[in-house]
Amino acid sequence: MSMIDSIDPTTGAIVESVAEVTTNAEVDALASKAAAAAPVFAALGREFRARLLRAIADELESIRTDIVAVGTRETALPEARLNGELTRTVYQARLFAEVVDDGGYLEATIDHAGDTPMGPGPDLRRLLVPLGPVAVFGASNFPLAFSVPGGDTVSALAAGCPVIVKAHSSHPALSKLTFDTMTRAARTVDAPDGLLGIVFGTSSGARLVANPAIAAVGFTGSLGGGKALLDIIAGRPGPIPFYGELSSLNPLVVTPGAAAARGADIAAGVVASVTGSGGQLCTKPGLVLVPLGSEGDALVSAAAELVEQAPAATLLNQRISTSYDQISTSLKQTEEVTVIAEGGKPVGDGFSVTPRLLQVDATSLHGGEVEECFGPTAIIARYDLDSLDQAIAALPASLTSTIHAEDDETELVQRLSASLLPKSGRLLFNGYPTGVLVSWAQQHGGPWPSTNTLHTSVGTTSIRRWLRPVTWQSAPTAVLPEELQDDYLSIPRRVDGRLQLGQ
Amino acid sequence: MSMIDSIDPTTGAIVESVAEVTTNAEVDALASKAAAAAPVFAALGREFRARLLRAIADELESIRTDIVAVGTRETALPEARLNGELTRTVYQARLFAEVVDDGGYLEATIDHAGDTPMGPGPDLRRLLVPLGPVAVFGASNFPLAFSVPGGDTVSALAAGCPVIVKAHSSHPALSKLTFDTMTRAARTVDAPDGLLGIVFGTSSGARLVANPAIAAVGFTGSLGGGKALLDIIAGRPGPIPFYGELSSLNPLVVTPGAAAARGADIAAGVVASVTGSGGQLCTKPGLVLVPLGSEGDALVSAAAELVEQAPAATLLNQRISTSYDQISTSLKQTEEVTVIAEGGKPVGDGFSVTPRLLQVDATSLHGGEVEECFGPTAIIARYDLDSLDQAIAALPASLTSTIHAEDDETELVQRLSASLLPKSGRLLFNGYPTGVLVSWAQQHGGPWPSTNTLHTSVGTTSIRRWLRPVTWQSAPTAVLPEELQDDYLSIPRRVDGRLQLGQ
Repeated sequence: MSMIDSIDPTTGAIVESVAEVTTNAEVDALASKAAAAAPVFAALGREFRARLLRAIADELESIRTDIVAVGTRETALPEARLNGELTRTVYQARLFAEVVDDGGYLEATIDHAGDTPMGPGPDLRRLLVPLGPVAVFGASNFPLAFSVPGGDTVSALAAGCPVIVKAHSSHPALSKLTFDTMTRAARTVDAPDGLLGIVFGTSSGARLVANPAIAAVGFTGSLGGGKALLDIIAGRPGPIPFYGELSSLNPLVVTPGAAAARGADIAAGVVASVTGSGGQLCTKPGLVLVPLGSEGDALVSAAAELVEQAPAATLLNQRISTSYDQISTSLKQTEEVTVIAEGGKPVGDGFSVTPRLLQVDATSLHGGEVEECFGPTAIIARYDLDSLDQAIAALPASLTSTIHAEDDETELVQRLSASLLPKSGRLLFNGYPTGVLVSWAQQHGGPWPSTNTLHTSVGTTSIRRWLRPVTWQSAPTAVLPEELQDDYLSIPRRVDGRLQLGQ
Repeated sequence: MSMIDSIDPTTGAIVESVAEVTTNAEVDALASKAAAAAPVFAALGREFRARLLRAIADELESIRTDIVAVGTRETALPEARLNGELTRTVYQARLFAEVVDDGGYLEATIDHAGDTPMGPGPDLRRLLVPLGPVAVFGASNFPLAFSVPGGDTVSALAAGCPVIVKAHSSHPALSKLTFDTMTRAARTVDAPDGLLGIVFGTSSGARLVANPAIAAVGFTGSLGGGKALLDIIAGRPGPIPFYGELSSLNPLVVTPGAAAARGADIAAGVVASVTGSGGQLCTKPGLVLVPLGSEGDALVSAAAELVEQAPAATLLNQRISTSYDQISTSLKQTEEVTVIAEGGKPVGDGFSVTPRLLQVDATSLHGGEVEECFGPTAIIARYDLDSLDQAIAALPASLTSTIHAEDDETELVQRLSASLLPKSGRLLFNGYPTGVLVSWAQQHGGPWPSTNTLHTSVGTTSIRRWLRPVTWQSAPTAVLPEELQDDYLSIPRRVDGRLQLGQ
């Protein structure tokens, strides 16, 4: 029997065996149970779902010490990071309970029967309904917020969909701990059997995505992993939605004004954003556009100094660490690329790597220089204003783009915004893209290859991914969802074309 | 030079040559012009887009007589149908102007900077922005409402996207006439050059979908045609959204109570819905579930009589007519299937076919009996209540499902609703699914194979297909869209988690 082991990233050694690889028969049984749970869960209604989400938040919070201990040991991320991520994860579950209570996400719409320019119109009532069982692929780099109890899971539960999680191999023990905690929470509110499931092992993930009961897939991971799942989906009798958060360069542009006014501050901010969490954040600024000239030089020198002082970083797993070294080697051998700073040398037998700052001329950006490299590295691209638009045009789309500029550079900022907007999901000013607030107005998703959807995987509107519209025509009240009945006034609805607030 | 000819469906003869097949170079030039127009059009704002849509509506209305004459000649659809469809098309353009004015579709959301459980949060402002140039594939069966000036085109323009239409080969003359009319309307409001384009010929459609400037595809047509375009999209460097409205059986269930109370009325309604427009409507009820027993028998006899009286129907083109005859032949040769009525014999050399009513036992529904057959035919499946759920379980998903029931059958109606809902985009009661009202609460799209999206292609929310969310973080007012500025209060917005109406 093949086992799923928990590895210590600082040593590369197996600490414990967590689970057996889930067999195909077990995967199929979980999917069938989820399919059976789906209509039961949907029928339990929004109040139940909000209670479930709050129970999950409470249970997770109640074992904070255990979660942080297991997470720290299994990921080598600092304790403060795990604590902060748990706070975010608990908040996220509670925020989705608020979303469910609010009900605006349902897009409830009523057109009463009446005359229209096309003749008599029937009574039409539209609502978003849950899609059915969702497969969630946990990410390595956010072992809580984007993993078993993460945003995909709680947004799908909020929508009314059962969830089966594929545990990430980088943190199986934490996956099991948090899954058991969620299951306990589900029991406290008498949730239907089969609502939550977990599978371990790559083969089980593939089996899950192919299972006809699965109605949608949420994935945060590599472009290669996402494409492999897309291929499986293409082989299904009917396609299903795939929400992949895949690869992102996250360019950050420093204007001449900003470089002059606060080059050292920006250097410090960039290096902190590049090296934090071992540079393993999907919104890490991987390419920093800095003006040519002495003020840009000073910024680059300050950044180089900070990177030289940075200790080696222990990455999450063997694959990320190997890939980091391979990409670094390849870039170092690229003629146009200069290594301008390297941090601490790798230590121990684990997944330790050297932080690194590279430099290139902005006119020679292509290929490897504009591909995401997971880990504590960034490329500084030096530009003059005449070639800046061309350099931006060569960039792939990203989750984020950032502009550092001064107040008196309005024209340049408008020009940069216009060229960065078509290739960004979030456009930031005078900040750093890492640290993605879970809120109503958040957007975490941009054009391909950053994601392949028109949706976000962070923030309240991520619930839309697990819903589809249904319209009831001339339906008797007995079959209408309560939210579409005339006297249900507690949620926002559009009635006969006019939006009304919930009362 | 290969020509696009306008055919008379009643004779199969070429009436005129309308255009040359658009060359690859011409397609690429149109896409480039659309890409250049995209940011200009987006920047012109919502007021301009509403004006453009109203100008299009006015210009189309102003040449009603020409449109109806060309459309009738080219499609063999009755004049009343073309007149009604033009009314709908004009209304649709005006309704999208209202949607643009309303602004709720933008999902404008503002989270002001402030403390959060995760620490200080930045100012975040989210809005849906246009995707970029859209390729629209006109449908054969709605030469106006789902073609050049149809729902895909006007919803994409409302969203702020340039549109290039692939003209359907069944009505090239009407496509050219309506395109020229729209172009004239665009000129009256000084729309940017390249905003509208049209291509002719299958090869040009394929080239268009492969062009990197195209950001999304709207398609109404066959499952095979949709799959071919999906294959082209899969071959692009990055995927783009494909909104296909493909294939739909549209089951209609008559309960025992309804059969007893108004079997003859239902028979008349079903036959009208099956034979109207030559049965060439995507919501045609292709499968009618009728109870076994004498009252079901009476309904079927009444329907059979009406089909026998129905004249031959002239279909839209050679392909549809050939396919209709092939599917009919195949079904007639299926052991379980009985032909219970045939209408008028084909007349002339055109695309004339015989209306036909078939019958099968509901326990033997599989394969060909549950596939869409475009044209004036339906299969009646006879059921007893014990096997009804199983029969429904064997059905593919559809755009619509319909239940005819009496007021005292609440329990059965709830049971049928529950089993039909997961495979329906619209659930109708005591009506007929053909005739899709353009309105706020409409839904025209169901699970695969009816469509492959979570969206609708009819009604105001179809605009969502051409939009993606962007969040501005800590942005200076000078780069914020006006709809996200604090003092812009005329549209619905969610501010700090609370929905506010437009003032």
